[in-house]
Amino acid sequence: MRHDLNMTAGDELHEECGVFGMYDFDHGDVASTIYYGLFALQHRGQESCGIAVSDTAGPKGKVNAYKGMGLCNEVFTPEILEGLHGNIGVGHVRYSTAGSSTRENAQPLVLNYIKGTLALAHNGNLVNAPDLRRELEYSGAIFQTTIDSEVIAYHIARERVKTSSVEEAVAGAMKKIVGAYSLVVMSPRKMIGARDPFGFKPLCIGKRDNAYILVSESCALDTIGAEFVRDVKPGEIVTITKDGIASDTRLCFQDRSREARCVFEYIYFARPDSVFDGVSVYQARILAGRALAVDSPVEADLVVGVPESGNGAALGYSMESQIPYGTAFVKNSYVGRTFIKPKQSSRESAVRIKLNVLKEAVAGKRVIMIDDSIVRGTTSALIVGILREAGAKEVHVRISAPPFLHPCYFGTDIPSEDQLIAHGRTVQEICDMIGADSLSFLRQERLTEMAQGLPICTACFSGEYPIQPPEEDIRGEYAQ
Amino acid sequence: MRHDLNMTAGDELHEECGVFGMYDFDHGDVASTIYYGLFALQHRGQESCGIAVSDTAGPKGKVNAYKGMGLCNEVFTPEILEGLHGNIGVGHVRYSTAGSSTRENAQPLVLNYIKGTLALAHNGNLVNAPDLRRELEYSGAIFQTTIDSEVIAYHIARERVKTSSVEEAVAGAMKKIVGAYSLVVMSPRKMIGARDPFGFKPLCIGKRDNAYILVSESCALDTIGAEFVRDVKPGEIVTITKDGIASDTRLCFQDRSREARCVFEYIYFARPDSVFDGVSVYQARILAGRALAVDSPVEADLVVGVPESGNGAALGYSMESQIPYGTAFVKNSYVGRTFIKPKQSSRESAVRIKLNVLKEAVAGKRVIMIDDSIVRGTTSALIVGILREAGAKEVHVRISAPPFLHPCYFGTDIPSEDQLIAHGRTVQEICDMIGADSLSFLRQERLTEMAQGLPICTACFSGEYPIQPPEEDIRGEYAQ
Amino acid sequence: MRHDLNMTAGDELHEECGVFGMYDFDHGDVASTIYYGLFALQHRGQESCGIAVSDTAGPKGKVNAYKGMGLCNEVFTPEILEGLHGNIGVGHVRYSTAGSSTRENAQPLVLNYIKGTLALAHNGNLVNAPDLRRELEYSGAIFQTTIDSEVIAYHIARERVKTSSVEEAVAGAMKKIVGAYSLVVMSPRKMIGARDPFGFKPLCIGKRDNAYILVSESCALDTIGAEFVRDVKPGEIVTITKDGIASDTRLCFQDRSREARCVFEYIYFARPDSVFDGVSVYQARILAGRALAVDSPVEADLVVGVPESGNGAALGYSMESQIPYGTAFVKNSYVGRTFIKPKQSSRESAVRIKLNVLKEAVAGKRVIMIDDSIVRGTTSALIVGILREAGAKEVHVRISAPPFLHPCYFGTDIPSEDQLIAHGRTVQEICDMIGADSLSFLRQERLTEMAQGLPICTACFSGEYPIQPPEEDIRGEYAQ
Amino acid sequence: MRHDLNMTAGDELHEECGVFGMYDFDHGDVASTIYYGLFALQHRGQESCGIAVSDTAGPKGKVNAYKGMGLCNEVFTPEILEGLHGNIGVGHVRYSTAGSSTRENAQPLVLNYIKGTLALAHNGNLVNAPDLRRELEYSGAIFQTTIDSEVIAYHIARERVKTSSVEEAVAGAMKKIVGAYSLVVMSPRKMIGARDPFGFKPLCIGKRDNAYILVSESCALDTIGAEFVRDVKPGEIVTITKDGIASDTRLCFQDRSREARCVFEYIYFARPDSVFDGVSVYQARILAGRALAVDSPVEADLVVGVPESGNGAALGYSMESQIPYGTAFVKNSYVGRTFIKPKQSSRESAVRIKLNVLKEAVAGKRVIMIDDSIVRGTTSALIVGILREAGAKEVHVRISAPPFLHPCYFGTDIPSEDQLIAHGRTVQEICDMIGADSLSFLRQERLTEMAQGLPICTACFSGEYPIQPPEEDIRGEYAQ
Repeated sequence: MRHDLNMTAGDELHEECGVFGMYDFDHGDVASTIYYGLFALQHRGQESCGIAVSDTAGPKGKVNAYKGMGLCNEVFTPEILEGLHGNIGVGHVRYSTAGSSTRENAQPLVLNYIKGTLALAHNGNLVNAPDLRRELEYSGAIFQTTIDSEVIAYHIARERVKTSSVEEAVAGAMKKIVGAYSLVVMSPRKMIGARDPFGFKPLCIGKRDNAYILVSESCALDTIGAEFVRDVKPGEIVTITKDGIASDTRLCFQDRSREARCVFEYIYFARPDSVFDGVSVYQARILAGRALAVDSPVEADLVVGVPESGNGAALGYSMESQIPYGTAFVKNSYVGRTFIKPKQSSRESAVRIKLNVLKEAVAGKRVIMIDDSIVRGTTSALIVGILREAGAKEVHVRISAPPFLHPCYFGTDIPSEDQLIAHGRTVQEICDMIGADSLSFLRQERLTEMAQGLPICTACFSGEYPIQPPEEDIRGEYAQ
Repeated sequence: MRHDLNMTAGDELHEECGVFGMYDFDHGDVASTIYYGLFALQHRGQESCGIAVSDTAGPKGKVNAYKGMGLCNEVFTPEILEGLHGNIGVGHVRYSTAGSSTRENAQPLVLNYIKGTLALAHNGNLVNAPDLRRELEYSGAIFQTTIDSEVIAYHIARERVKTSSVEEAVAGAMKKIVGAYSLVVMSPRKMIGARDPFGFKPLCIGKRDNAYILVSESCALDTIGAEFVRDVKPGEIVTITKDGIASDTRLCFQDRSREARCVFEYIYFARPDSVFDGVSVYQARILAGRALAVDSPVEADLVVGVPESGNGAALGYSMESQIPYGTAFVKNSYVGRTFIKPKQSSRESAVRIKLNVLKEAVAGKRVIMIDDSIVRGTTSALIVGILREAGAKEVHVRISAPPFLHPCYFGTDIPSEDQLIAHGRTVQEICDMIGADSLSFLRQERLTEMAQGLPICTACFSGEYPIQPPEEDIRGEYAQ
Repeated sequence: MRHDLNMTAGDELHEECGVFGMYDFDHGDVASTIYYGLFALQHRGQESCGIAVSDTAGPKGKVNAYKGMGLCNEVFTPEILEGLHGNIGVGHVRYSTAGSSTRENAQPLVLNYIKGTLALAHNGNLVNAPDLRRELEYSGAIFQTTIDSEVIAYHIARERVKTSSVEEAVAGAMKKIVGAYSLVVMSPRKMIGARDPFGFKPLCIGKRDNAYILVSESCALDTIGAEFVRDVKPGEIVTITKDGIASDTRLCFQDRSREARCVFEYIYFARPDSVFDGVSVYQARILAGRALAVDSPVEADLVVGVPESGNGAALGYSMESQIPYGTAFVKNSYVGRTFIKPKQSSRESAVRIKLNVLKEAVAGKRVIMIDDSIVRGTTSALIVGILREAGAKEVHVRISAPPFLHPCYFGTDIPSEDQLIAHGRTVQEICDMIGADSLSFLRQERLTEMAQGLPICTACFSGEYPIQPPEEDIRGEYAQ
Repeated sequence: MRHDLNMTAGDELHEECGVFGMYDFDHGDVASTIYYGLFALQHRGQESCGIAVSDTAGPKGKVNAYKGMGLCNEVFTPEILEGLHGNIGVGHVRYSTAGSSTRENAQPLVLNYIKGTLALAHNGNLVNAPDLRRELEYSGAIFQTTIDSEVIAYHIARERVKTSSVEEAVAGAMKKIVGAYSLVVMSPRKMIGARDPFGFKPLCIGKRDNAYILVSESCALDTIGAEFVRDVKPGEIVTITKDGIASDTRLCFQDRSREARCVFEYIYFARPDSVFDGVSVYQARILAGRALAVDSPVEADLVVGVPESGNGAALGYSMESQIPYGTAFVKNSYVGRTFIKPKQSSRESAVRIKLNVLKEAVAGKRVIMIDDSIVRGTTSALIVGILREAGAKEVHVRISAPPFLHPCYFGTDIPSEDQLIAHGRTVQEICDMIGADSLSFLRQERLTEMAQGLPICTACFSGEYPIQPPEEDIRGEYAQ
């Protein structure tokens, strides 16, 4: 779907995690279903993955876990999956910035604490993690990873001493941690899901037979043949036990307009077959394409998307403009994570190896090329170039998002401002740099339409942060 | 692009090889370029791959080779590629039937013979290989593999004793071997390419700076930034030396109409960005789609392709019918060769894990679903089913090839007749079995149009074999 | 030297760790020297190993670590070692009981705490670890491993808040932890070594050029070409900084006779070329053999040791008795950790595969066979059997240790009492069970002689524990 | 036992193969027994190994084989062994010179020929292999490996066309191949063993229940619990079928004194627990030590062997001289094939890492150090040096073989003459170079005594070759 295979933003932007929890009341093993679920979330993180399971009928605190660097099908073998017995479990796929890409940081985090064992998987970035770390260290805490999950785990553990249940401890912890997080916590007899009050990251509930699922994206429910129950609300804590699902909404904002879903989930991160808080990712992209066609029309013969994430908006543009939609590119889907990149000096380029143009489709045509973002601009320039080489008469670039101008503190790995092509440049200057005949970005106002009115976070485009950003740059070492 | 990732024929049909030879007169190392070239051919064989190189300025017969089971990026590491010094080389990707899937059978075949060393890569299946093997054995030959390449190698070696050059020996061997083959032979100072007189399998010539390339598909030339020179003609032997390209066409058919290109290269095997003998694969598929629209029209709201190989014909159908083209499926591109298949009993199905439907795109619509073939029919039935589940009102299936009815002896791994859904069934019966509202196949007459008049082999559809098929079934153990 | 390759106690008894720290004031990289040092300690632990390094001139708290399951030469590659830059480092080899044999538990433990980073390697078992864990959990601690090292690390971290230096924090922690431990702690600018007041486990100081070493056994100093400086005293904390070695002996026993070195280090665990607290392991074994010859003489033609650890005592027995020493066994040194054990039903036995008898050496002879221990007795019976098969006329077994009768709580993995052959049996009964003509054990009084008067722990033989054993059996899950 | 782990000749000399064939008439699977047998032969070759099996009740010519680079326990897993079904099989361990150390060259060689399938394992070096290769190539043969086995296989295949049985074909082939070979050939229903007329390499027959074994060394029979039947005679062909063992001695020398067993098998290559042609390797070494004591006496306090292969002769020297035998060295048995060698510049030396001296054993003593050979002399110098460092007052070196002066063409990888320390130097000069107080070699006359009168090859010492050596140096590329 993206990232390593993607020629567009995926080369330059990274989502940071996907979580998948499952609790089977019929006591079937959940590990292999979690494995298939993580497959459906693989686009959210390709660096490491892990599964931790437990048996709710077994001895309290006996957890079986396996984590490793790489994709799901590299880390897990049939033997490993078969060894992971248990009817409750949590899985995780992870991407991280280079510095902290180690096995120690792979999730789920499994730990012993006062009440037995806890496994924890989360997606997002805390804004106050460094402060919380320092505070914990002053009270004698030791940290064996550099992931936020460990900070969250400590808070749950400390709250647990004072509270009557693990879900209360999670609530207590949530009062202290600030930032973006969707969380799945497995305790010996309960599975808890929580989403930060802003709702930055998605999390939803599914059901299959007598089992409940908590998962980052609804597409994974289709994959495993489960039905979608509902989204976890921003600020909500759901506790899944034998007795059903309990909901704690005390931490939800009274004023729902303070919520701030990451709009980039709709634009790029999520799979098009996912639906978040009632809004289809596919529809959002079609809408963005339609909006671009209305706002930035141009006469042309063909609309094409840069695969894969540009295709949805391209289809929308074509629908609105009545200019035929077509396929211009062939992507080599064998070019994966472990692909040997050509050296600078070599005649081959990574772009050419991953992407080829269908000359017959574009030769002699005026082409509208839709992409979801321009980050540094180098890839866009290369793609415009190979379209022209293949005989395209004109290349008009339309981007289904506004220009990136500001850092994200909530989990998206956007490069620093000086590396962003849009930083300090006009649209025309960018257009010249990438060699296009014309260039337009989606207007910011259109983002809200795209999300069908849901309150969203547009900080990376607008600079308007829903939470005060930290004074020191917390991205990097401690980014999870 | 296909095969392991593909929900359609790729699950059931397999191409059997791709070859890539390169000779750099400027004495640069060719191994890493061959590696990138094999990437572009990976869809032709995912089971094993290998590269053999030599230095034309070095000691005669010193060949460095590395072969292994798996994809290019699994078999080759930077260290291995850097260790493969030489300015002439040949690479191979291979698929084989289960029985003979061993490292011994990986290509290229490297051997010492009377005139030093030979490395040989080939694509295709000989019809008379078992006879030739037996004959050779009677004269004291030993066989260490079960691939046809070893039979070809023996004939070249034996001819070489009687002839003045390796290209003459190749010509001599070609007089004895019968069947489908595209061949690249590396001798210490020459690179030779040959194609059987029927031209079953493609082979073309490329050039980059001062280096020549022989490759199965032209798309690999784009990948490495080389230009297309021309196709090797059916029956032609080209000999590449310092002095340029020599051509020997003595074995070409006088009567060109006897040529018999495998039409399935256009329908399914090849990448759409390849061009064979002047016909673009992309164009051929568009034409097939247009023909289907003309021959088998139906009222509908949406035309969709089963990814990836159905997309071209879907676009053609949409162009001709004016029914909007759209995307109905999201394919999980992380599901690769080493993916753990769900057990029969599990709730997850391989189809659901690989393919999801965009409900928003198809719900309430009459959908025309284009695929390139129906082999056993099970996958088609599953896909029709998930479209209906997602709310499609009608599902009309159009297949961009005629029904499979006969075995192939020339390198395509078609299952035996009793497993072919079309064997002994009417189209309506098949339509019922896969649960579609209507079903049409491409008419056989359309195939020639698709290939723009080139003589083609349609034996698997028509039963008209360009060569008398062998009496015993040679598919299986000795299939290469 | 032993363990997996050893036919005697090594099959049944296991040491639990070896540590190696190094600090080079000349700023050379220490990782590869630590690697060679761990090789020399490999007999102390074959299950996992790890190295953590830091640069004392670099940013505080930047630690590079690599840990893995397996032997040193399985875990480390040249690439990995070259990537471990730093002039201060600590390494560890580990054996553990089955339950907690996971990568998470591999050492050194690397962690962030209030004062930056700490890497910690230790050898031994705490008696009060479970109590300390529970206490820490009540104050909100989380545990990610089941090793005692994490308990020690927490105490150091908590003490560090109250104290002025890391060595004071170690001293503070040592007041709380009770049991057997030899410890190497690496902080950003210091390397600290500590040994519990009983001195159960060895630890010594070495020097090479301008670098200091802390290591479990002196043999590793020979291996890396370093000189032996002195042993760390029981109860002593040594702090190595640029300014040299500081010693803190406040925790040493006033009454040195309370010290309790593990006598099994001399009998079996340690390499014969090591010297602990002034006593040579080789000499101790020679003495044990001599004592056996004096206490339990028998007429015979040949004295042989069960390789490798029985050889020293066999030589001593021969010296004292003047009965010729010889070699009776050929050990297959290729039978390592990953060797596939024969199935119960197969005709091959693990003993025969590892050990063969030199028929020519023993046929027709009365043989005295010296071994270091009998645990379950099964291996001894097999070895006596193959000696007889090879033609030995008589087999007299002499054991260079008293019979095992009691559990060890300080780090030696002795099976539970009901599995010990000596439990509830007379020497004559054991003799009959293993099929020997006569059997004698070393007398307990001889142990002190063997250790040349050093205060030793003989609890596993005598039941006299230097520390009150815990009420619950702490061996198992939390054993480190 | 040796080679990678050995500090003596093993660092510099290499045996080149071990073979193990088994045929179970009770139709039990033989693969795992072959595996254990190869373990016992591992000292004969650590570079690659392989097993090929077949079912004599199954379809003719169905062979299952697995080969790989590395030690037996690295190449084979339980899964692989379990997959190798068949009641007849042949295994091989191999060492080779650097140039041809590839997987292609691993044995057994498995091939199809006129009569079905053949698996072939052999030990030794043909003197006329290059000539035979050339001859075969002129008749159109192709070679896929550089091992002599392929030449032998061709001859068997060609003879088979003309003869009535595979054993006749082997006999026919043996008339053409000249040199050293012990051969095991598996055909669909027969197992054939053959030994060249000179008997350079050992081969013996064993039996277990209803199964026959053909193996390089008798020690492997002990390992698998089989009994020794007899040696295959030099020049004999034994054919094992359901009907028992048939013997063909037509190719044996009439004049038995022409036989030429490799004396180095007794001195160094073989395991001491093996017996060849009635002579015990252990006894031969004891005899060599005794002879040294008689011929080259010296006053001293201690006799020690350089482990492992020097120990036997050291024991013999001690017996004869009445000077006490002792242990001076501790060898690190964890230092295996994949051990990372210290760089030239590093402070650690490979010798120190592998070998340490027991200071307590040698300090202040006059030591006689027995080794089996001196090749280049560098290792000997290092070992003498560390003995002196450890306080030995005198070091007298006695070598249980004469000095190496000539190349071996029959399978022992002796370096070229200019690298042999004995080439062009007097014993006193060598003594000075290695820093010993005195040095003596075994006298050539003693070799025959050592072999108890058996005709032996002493060409590497005497230059008297039993076969005319080839004119061109055939060692290297084609050495097997």
